[in-house]
Amino acid sequence: MTQHIETHFDRELRALKEEILKMGAIVEQMIDGSLKALVNRDLQLMGQVLQRDQEVDQLEIHIDDICLQMLALRQPAASDLRFIATGIKITKDLERMGDIAVNIVEEERALLQEPQLKPYHDLPLMGEKARSMVKRALDAFVAADANEAQAVCEMDDEVDELNHRIEEELFDIMRRDPSTVFRGVHLLFVSRQYERLGDHATNIAEQVVFMVKGQDIRHGQG
Amino acid sequence: MTQHIETHFDRELRALKEEILKMGAIVEQMIDGSLKALVNRDLQLMGQVLQRDQEVDQLEIHIDDICLQMLALRQPAASDLRFIATGIKITKDLERMGDIAVNIVEEERALLQEPQLKPYHDLPLMGEKARSMVKRALDAFVAADANEAQAVCEMDDEVDELNHRIEEELFDIMRRDPSTVFRGVHLLFVSRQYERLGDHATNIAEQVVFMVKGQDIRHGQG
Repeated sequence: MTQHIETHFDRELRALKEEILKMGAIVEQMIDGSLKALVNRDLQLMGQVLQRDQEVDQLEIHIDDICLQMLALRQPAASDLRFIATGIKITKDLERMGDIAVNIVEEERALLQEPQLKPYHDLPLMGEKARSMVKRALDAFVAADANEAQAVCEMDDEVDELNHRIEEELFDIMRRDPSTVFRGVHLLFVSRQYERLGDHATNIAEQVVFMVKGQDIRHGQG
Repeated sequence: MTQHIETHFDRELRALKEEILKMGAIVEQMIDGSLKALVNRDLQLMGQVLQRDQEVDQLEIHIDDICLQMLALRQPAASDLRFIATGIKITKDLERMGDIAVNIVEEERALLQEPQLKPYHDLPLMGEKARSMVKRALDAFVAADANEAQAVCEMDDEVDELNHRIEEELFDIMRRDPSTVFRGVHLLFVSRQYERLGDHATNIAEQVVFMVKGQDIRHGQG
């Protein structure tokens, strides 16, 4: 399927993409785990999500190393240079997303102290949208597909809208019954964190758009 | 004061440091503005903070460009390479911090809809600590000073402790009087955002530690 002979650099670039997708897949699993753990009040699953954060942190360091080695040894030309620099930025978003999944699980553990406030509909929907945004943003990155990246940015409005609806509902519940304040606030925090996951996925997608357009606009730089 | 003849690369490195410090100074001013605007309920100052976010975003792009040009044209050796790669990471933290200052101001504007809930003591203290952490983390970066960076990491415990105290107090107020829920929740969000600013400053400081230690450990890579 390759249309030219693969060079050392091509191989390294492919390995870099694979590692970034691997990091993204773990973050996705963490988000998915946090959603299932919320709905099922599953303390064990919460622990499993927490444990994976180390893998994410280690992958960030590992991927940054790959990027630095490629920059130092291969002196890549403009478009590859921008790809690698974007990779460095993206691993940082992914690392933060791992941290956010950890924060979510910590809120969920606090929520276990009291009975469930209400059935969850919008929260899992929102979290699932955020998870899907991560996947699509990273696919857009490895394919350098600005259109797909743009579509991810547009999904963020849906996440924001869901967060807004959840906030309004929880404010209402807490005002009517102050005994719900503890749970209400922790659910508000959970909701905000899923919204932030959407923001980070959007951030990745925006960087992909910028990377692709930068390749067109800033020629002759390398 | 320079002990050797300054090369093109030295000049570029110095310019890079200056631009990163400039970006950090704007973020500091935004944090400071958000604190004064909170305490004085100053809508005009809130607007001024919002306006500065664009400068931060543009500086991120500008600094990334400088970094990419240096990587492409100068083929820096290991320690400079790591410095530049850390620079790319740090601008991302600073850009997020600008966004967080914007979020804080948006919460503050919501708070203006109702009378002030209580006098603010811990919140300004916490925000001021976070602002100071940014400054010290960036100074540690340009000086490649791992000890100072370590000290910044330790400050984060104080910020977390203040946030915890603020949360407990607000939970208490809201439980006793549900008419305070709107203000209580928005103040909780403000508090959380200052805590996140501390996290980002810590993140910068950790990267500085890693950068400095990386120089010692990973020789012969460039």
